[in-house]
Amino acid sequence: MRIALDAMGGDLGPELLIDGALSAIDKRRDLEVVLLGPEDLLKEQIAQRAGSGNSTGRLSIVHAPQTVSMHESPVDAVRKKKDSTVMVGFDLVKNGQADAVVSAGNSGATMAAAVRKLGRLKGISRPGIASLFPTLKDPVMLMDIGANVDCRSQHLFQFAIMASSCSGLLLNIDRPRIGLLSIGEESGKGNTLVKKTHDMLKVSSLNFIGNVEGRDVYKGDVDVIVCDGFVGNISLKISEGLAEAAMEMLKVEIMKSLRAKIGYLFIRKAFAAFRKRVDYAEYGGAPLLGINGIGIICHGTSSSVAICNAIGEAANMFENRVNESITRSLQQYAVPV
Amino acid sequence: MRIALDAMGGDLGPELLIDGALSAIDKRRDLEVVLLGPEDLLKEQIAQRAGSGNSTGRLSIVHAPQTVSMHESPVDAVRKKKDSTVMVGFDLVKNGQADAVVSAGNSGATMAAAVRKLGRLKGISRPGIASLFPTLKDPVMLMDIGANVDCRSQHLFQFAIMASSCSGLLLNIDRPRIGLLSIGEESGKGNTLVKKTHDMLKVSSLNFIGNVEGRDVYKGDVDVIVCDGFVGNISLKISEGLAEAAMEMLKVEIMKSLRAKIGYLFIRKAFAAFRKRVDYAEYGGAPLLGINGIGIICHGTSSSVAICNAIGEAANMFENRVNESITRSLQQYAVPV
Repeated sequence: MRIALDAMGGDLGPELLIDGALSAIDKRRDLEVVLLGPEDLLKEQIAQRAGSGNSTGRLSIVHAPQTVSMHESPVDAVRKKKDSTVMVGFDLVKNGQADAVVSAGNSGATMAAAVRKLGRLKGISRPGIASLFPTLKDPVMLMDIGANVDCRSQHLFQFAIMASSCSGLLLNIDRPRIGLLSIGEESGKGNTLVKKTHDMLKVSSLNFIGNVEGRDVYKGDVDVIVCDGFVGNISLKISEGLAEAAMEMLKVEIMKSLRAKIGYLFIRKAFAAFRKRVDYAEYGGAPLLGINGIGIICHGTSSSVAICNAIGEAANMFENRVNESITRSLQQYAVPV
Repeated sequence: MRIALDAMGGDLGPELLIDGALSAIDKRRDLEVVLLGPEDLLKEQIAQRAGSGNSTGRLSIVHAPQTVSMHESPVDAVRKKKDSTVMVGFDLVKNGQADAVVSAGNSGATMAAAVRKLGRLKGISRPGIASLFPTLKDPVMLMDIGANVDCRSQHLFQFAIMASSCSGLLLNIDRPRIGLLSIGEESGKGNTLVKKTHDMLKVSSLNFIGNVEGRDVYKGDVDVIVCDGFVGNISLKISEGLAEAAMEMLKVEIMKSLRAKIGYLFIRKAFAAFRKRVDYAEYGGAPLLGINGIGIICHGTSSSVAICNAIGEAANMFENRVNESITRSLQQYAVPV
């Protein structure tokens, strides 16, 4: 398998991304990674690593001289930067020279490039982005986390199908429990979009367990949570913001007393483990679902571990044919609209 | 001033609510509290407290034999339970026998009773619920947190006016900074509703600082955040859920090692202080804004401290004439729709 990695994406520079690629090929011998970026720069990076004894045999380079910055408009980027890392990457997938693209860069541009180069899966109206959230039990997959801000019920219904196929595969669950994010558990609760979606899911043969509230997201009693991309993005970002702020507030309280400061020395490791568990940058990546190929976007501040995990996730999705599973589910579960 | 307290609302029983009322009258000598609920039950409660030396002179009772349970439909409750605590309470406000109602009961029913008995403020299309969120700096007021799930831009515009008046008064801020909750800071980011609202706020003379993202909510760099009630409710509930889950996860990590367990003994107080800071049940209450009177809803698991704070907040809103301020702002800032 060959996974193409956008070596220029993200906020922390190519070194860390390439380290992630090295770990990934080190973990799996059936894996090759194609680095996307300016050839000279990447050659130098690889040479450095080979010099320090790393096995770089299954790393290769495909020249992509342009990069899309974090705040660039996705539409402009796709239109004007034909030689950007993500455009070149999805071109490789289109031509069968790579099996997936992983990028920690501008997520909108990555999605736009994927749709432009690969198109949508047959029957899918709106591709979207799914993301795993940590919970008290197993992670839950939320979809959509930002690709589609104005949705209709059939879009959310398809998110349920796609996320269910993908989480079933990634987390090895037979029939993932699907919940619909709303403001009350009863079927009548929610906005117009949610009420309509609830009715569609209820009559389908999907494993729909009903509405879930915001406070249920982190409990882990559901495997897939469906929402529109506006609500999903705010849910993700507010969680990141609160997790950071909470650690900050706790630190302030600890620093107020010598006693607590001493206690902190004893507790430090538990803190670090906790931080890792709730740190979104540690999670692999967010699969783009509904495109005719495989793409994964990572947090801009992803660690090399997160990049390594995302590459593994992409390989896993490819070898388990997630898109075939989605297409089958679409045929099986689709309800007449 | 006379504040009416729904003595039957909430999940934890009347004792705690009445304790909150006692603390409130103890704090402010210009305050009376009217307890709403079954007369016999409340008489007994007051007698018990008077017996143990509490000053109950400024507590009185107004008989309200019916209660609305947490899961009852607000519409049904208002239609069928004319003698419920909240209906009786807002009747008192209507007749000038009380200045505000505080309830920790069914928030939808409290809102419905308020609108039914008092009506909307002149010029307001949709009353809503505002709530203070803890941040790294001062609290931020989010509106709407659940009363209006399907909104138009003029509703969100009015939320900005109402929350700005109220937070200015409660937190003593001259011109509160208003942000619009969205999925990117740029004006073009967001769903259709948010983009339209952005345009309206931008041309107004309100102190609008632009879009804020989910991750900005807890930073404290904005005083008011505007969103529809669906997004607001999910933001609130997901925060509560994450705060709880995070404490749980941290506990699990601490329990894994003896060293960390010992450290915890030293750090316990800092933890408790932190918990209090992020505990939504500790916050006073959420003002109902846009009704022709004053109402505050509290979390169902409010402590007596939270109830005491909410009563104080209600008094504060009454004596500073929050509704006059909202009406003035409406005239000053309203833009032609």
